[in-house]
Amino acid sequence: MARDTPWRGASHHLRLWPPHTSDAYEEARRERNHFRPSYHQQDEMAPKYTLHYWPQIPGRGEYIRLAFEYSDVPYAENNDVTKLQALLDESAPTGSPHHFALPLLEITEGSQRQLISQTPAILLYLSQQIPRLYNSQTEAKSATATATATATTHIHTHQVLLTVLDLSNEVHDTHHPIGAGLYYEDQKPEAARRARDLREERLPKFLTYFDQLLTNLEGRVAIKGQTTVADLALWQVLEGLNFAFPQWCKRAREAGQYAKVWEFQRSVGEEDRIKAYVESGRRKPFSDGLFRHYPELDAAEGEGEGEGETKKRRVE
Amino acid sequence: MARDTPWRGASHHLRLWPPHTSDAYEEARRERNHFRPSYHQQDEMAPKYTLHYWPQIPGRGEYIRLAFEYSDVPYAENNDVTKLQALLDESAPTGSPHHFALPLLEITEGSQRQLISQTPAILLYLSQQIPRLYNSQTEAKSATATATATATTHIHTHQVLLTVLDLSNEVHDTHHPIGAGLYYEDQKPEAARRARDLREERLPKFLTYFDQLLTNLEGRVAIKGQTTVADLALWQVLEGLNFAFPQWCKRAREAGQYAKVWEFQRSVGEEDRIKAYVESGRRKPFSDGLFRHYPELDAAEGEGEGEGETKKRRVE
Repeated sequence: MARDTPWRGASHHLRLWPPHTSDAYEEARRERNHFRPSYHQQDEMAPKYTLHYWPQIPGRGEYIRLAFEYSDVPYAENNDVTKLQALLDESAPTGSPHHFALPLLEITEGSQRQLISQTPAILLYLSQQIPRLYNSQTEAKSATATATATATTHIHTHQVLLTVLDLSNEVHDTHHPIGAGLYYEDQKPEAARRARDLREERLPKFLTYFDQLLTNLEGRVAIKGQTTVADLALWQVLEGLNFAFPQWCKRAREAGQYAKVWEFQRSVGEEDRIKAYVESGRRKPFSDGLFRHYPELDAAEGEGEGEGETKKRRVE
Repeated sequence: MARDTPWRGASHHLRLWPPHTSDAYEEARRERNHFRPSYHQQDEMAPKYTLHYWPQIPGRGEYIRLAFEYSDVPYAENNDVTKLQALLDESAPTGSPHHFALPLLEITEGSQRQLISQTPAILLYLSQQIPRLYNSQTEAKSATATATATATTHIHTHQVLLTVLDLSNEVHDTHHPIGAGLYYEDQKPEAARRARDLREERLPKFLTYFDQLLTNLEGRVAIKGQTTVADLALWQVLEGLNFAFPQWCKRAREAGQYAKVWEFQRSVGEEDRIKAYVESGRRKPFSDGLFRHYPELDAAEGEGEGEGETKKRRVE
């Protein structure tokens, strides 16, 4: 779920893609090294997408970028902080209802212009619109399935995506346990305590869950053998975890914990479209966004040997 | 987004509705004081719903109960802690993928049995299945609208619902800023600091946003003049806020802040179906769930007169 991602100032803004004007958009399409004319020849009426998101950080925008990159659907991006802040104004011409926070997806189809916010809502929309993200296996089966069975199969992907994004939020809150509007430096003692809870309780709980899904679903987390927006999001979270908590991840790997999870991270990273994206230079590196590397929050030596919170009594 | 709601033990469990066996379910249907035979006569194949959720607390289950109560669709409820914990086991016969946390909705249709978890996913499913929660106004218009416009109208309700549930999570995290598995008593200093940030930064930001939506959308937050799952969820959050932060809410009302929000809370509470639910005694009272009343976390005298965090520098 997309909480607002704070942004520390307006002095730097990068644009991976030009803002959404038809000329700039066409130019971007031509320039993209993986542009495949066949896709567009097939569907001249394909919607035009613009992602509005803060510059520099991968952030929650990255979950949406991955959907486009994986499915080879072109998109423009607006990272102009002044324009972004204006889009969150209730008087902005974004339609109704207006938007609480970024990321924001703009869809232009003919003379129609629609905007959607909230990361899970955007990914739900895209997974209904983009054939490669759509569950073709389920569709093939659905002729004989009931309406309920078909609907719940689609909902299940959303269910797992929401759980992946819950983990993403929990990792973010580890370095911001008191307030998203305060600097990390102003909440370090609280962050240290929360990070211990993340390492000892929450990461094991989440990764055990995903490990089991990957075991049951032939290497994917929502639908057997098929890459969905839930898989792409989990891959990004795992990349972020390895950036933010390298010692913790290393020790878990070496201890043989969550083996399916690490194998999943490796195999998704080697998929053609993901590999091309990583190698393109377009992918924004982790820095001070959702996933941050503060060595003092990473696993301490000797952890797991009885030094954790002793007052834990609540049963889930 | 439904994080797992912890439960402190297995000694008490109430069942508003019997567990889902056909006899018990039929008995529950007959006993319900607002049972309307016309609904069932119209559709003998209507799905049978069972909500699986922790006993006693309203919690995240309440967002789902409200959808049923508002739309007058019968549902059973399972609050047996032992059975609930078993449903979260990956080997439980809940279908695939399995579930990370409660609430969990079971749908029985003929011989088919499906289960969905994650509060927003459950509400998305129900709002697609239950006519009264479905956007009839949008449907009427959609014959002339493009597919994109129709799809985004549905997505917009989900977008606003997700924002309401973000607020719900932030209020929960105020009394549990370090770990959901730790007692409040073990994180009181951190909670005091986070509560100040909630009162001074987050509540004003969220309630200003909802106040504007209510102004623009004729008293509702997602679709003009129409009550959706987003409205029902916002009503529950406002009820919870008035329970947890009565002083803060009182002062905001008296200062004339967020007037549309308080008017919305009053008017939804007076809707026939909501009023009948509240008066039925079925509605679980707030206690130690998502929304808790700790007087020390409520507004302090003199707050808002320059005593807040002074190091706040980040710009959103």
